[in-house]
Amino acid sequence: MTREDLIHQIKAKQSFLCVGLDSDLSRIPRHLLEAKDPLFEFNKIIIDHTKEHCVAYKPNIAFYESLGSKGWESLAKTVDYIPDTHFTIADAKRGDIGNTSKQYAKTFFETLQFDSITVAPYMGIDSVSPFLEYSDKWVILLALTSNKGSDDFQHMTDVNGEQLFEQVLRKSQAWGSPDNLMFVVGATHPEAFKGIREIAKEHFLLVPGVGAQGGTVAEVCQFGLNEDIGLLINSSRGIIFASDGEDFGERAGESAKQLAMQMQPLI
Amino acid sequence: MTREDLIHQIKAKQSFLCVGLDSDLSRIPRHLLEAKDPLFEFNKIIIDHTKEHCVAYKPNIAFYESLGSKGWESLAKTVDYIPDTHFTIADAKRGDIGNTSKQYAKTFFETLQFDSITVAPYMGIDSVSPFLEYSDKWVILLALTSNKGSDDFQHMTDVNGEQLFEQVLRKSQAWGSPDNLMFVVGATHPEAFKGIREIAKEHFLLVPGVGAQGGTVAEVCQFGLNEDIGLLINSSRGIIFASDGEDFGERAGESAKQLAMQMQPLI
Repeated sequence: MTREDLIHQIKAKQSFLCVGLDSDLSRIPRHLLEAKDPLFEFNKIIIDHTKEHCVAYKPNIAFYESLGSKGWESLAKTVDYIPDTHFTIADAKRGDIGNTSKQYAKTFFETLQFDSITVAPYMGIDSVSPFLEYSDKWVILLALTSNKGSDDFQHMTDVNGEQLFEQVLRKSQAWGSPDNLMFVVGATHPEAFKGIREIAKEHFLLVPGVGAQGGTVAEVCQFGLNEDIGLLINSSRGIIFASDGEDFGERAGESAKQLAMQMQPLI
Repeated sequence: MTREDLIHQIKAKQSFLCVGLDSDLSRIPRHLLEAKDPLFEFNKIIIDHTKEHCVAYKPNIAFYESLGSKGWESLAKTVDYIPDTHFTIADAKRGDIGNTSKQYAKTFFETLQFDSITVAPYMGIDSVSPFLEYSDKWVILLALTSNKGSDDFQHMTDVNGEQLFEQVLRKSQAWGSPDNLMFVVGATHPEAFKGIREIAKEHFLLVPGVGAQGGTVAEVCQFGLNEDIGLLINSSRGIIFASDGEDFGERAGESAKQLAMQMQPLI
């Protein structure tokens, strides 16, 4: 999906919500376990009830991988089922040397047809560039993550006063453009968005950490929005596990709608 | 596998060689493509011919994942086939928030029964600690990698003169011990081993980058060895793709033996 298409979808749906498919087999409603492919069945119902309120889906690859080849099949079916009108993100946080990154690109952009993949920056340019060789595909590079451990290294400061996550934002702009490169910035650091927008004006930011992790849409939007919206705000557990009963689809739809309604006046 | 067992295996086999199973379907000998599971068939023959010369195997997960659920099955069969006397490394370079890392730990330590996994440090402690909850399992944390892009961020220096990879080595020692934590240090940085051994005296180091990437056993060992050997030197392409003919197994065995013979006098 191109940048223009994504902006078009945001305007059409009046939402910049991303639904995180962290579909943990141990947490999905028990009655689904009788289905042939419980994880896919769960995702299908979640997608059916949320698609009018969101513009993107982000399967968290760990929850599929942990089930071995079966989980991999559930993932493939899920990606196929997501409508073409929605941007798809493989939340895989890969990052390796060039010839290995090429294989990961093949996995997520060819074997599975995701629009984008999250990538860890630690190993530098060769972790990123093989993904950028695909047209209309995206790298979403970790910058400032939403977890507690983001404090361990991401705020390390060099002699010029620049922090590690700021170096990632700045240096990687030589590798990709706002047309194929986004950044992950956690909603748990609302104070950081102002400075981040000074370094990455045009780039889309994928923002996890709203809901279960404590961030809010309003805080993120205050400094995070740009001229083209430039945000994909993700919620996972707050939507997909809104209920563990037979009404889980409807309840997920309501939670997604609630977040989308907070976004609508800003579009 | 415990640290003691690993040291015992190194002494028994007179080798600290790790064979990297970067088993790229497009590079394995053509006659294997007729087999039911070409990737597993390839690995089986490589393992049969190299096991007396090495102490560890490191499947590079990207090459299996890129084939979808089929590749996942080849990987599972490979891990089962590796003898219990050999240390197994899932070269997966995962790194995520706590609840996701737990899933990755389940994948690589339960669904597949690897002894260890490579982990990227960017997201800090929550990326690492869920793996360390398993007894006799290991995290191998990226410190100074062998690729060109290692220059992009890993050498970033703070106001006290400490580089990012040195911070990773130092801080992570509060999370794990030499009994469950190793570090990745590329053979392409032989000059760095002296300083690294000052920070991480007892830890095992997994050293990629010998062979195709240009590093040598002698250079790595000069400052890398410690009292318990403390090194696993990996070679992938130089061993497994030593020949693309029907003799690929024998040739892999010879290449592995050649490296092991450079190690033997040092043990």
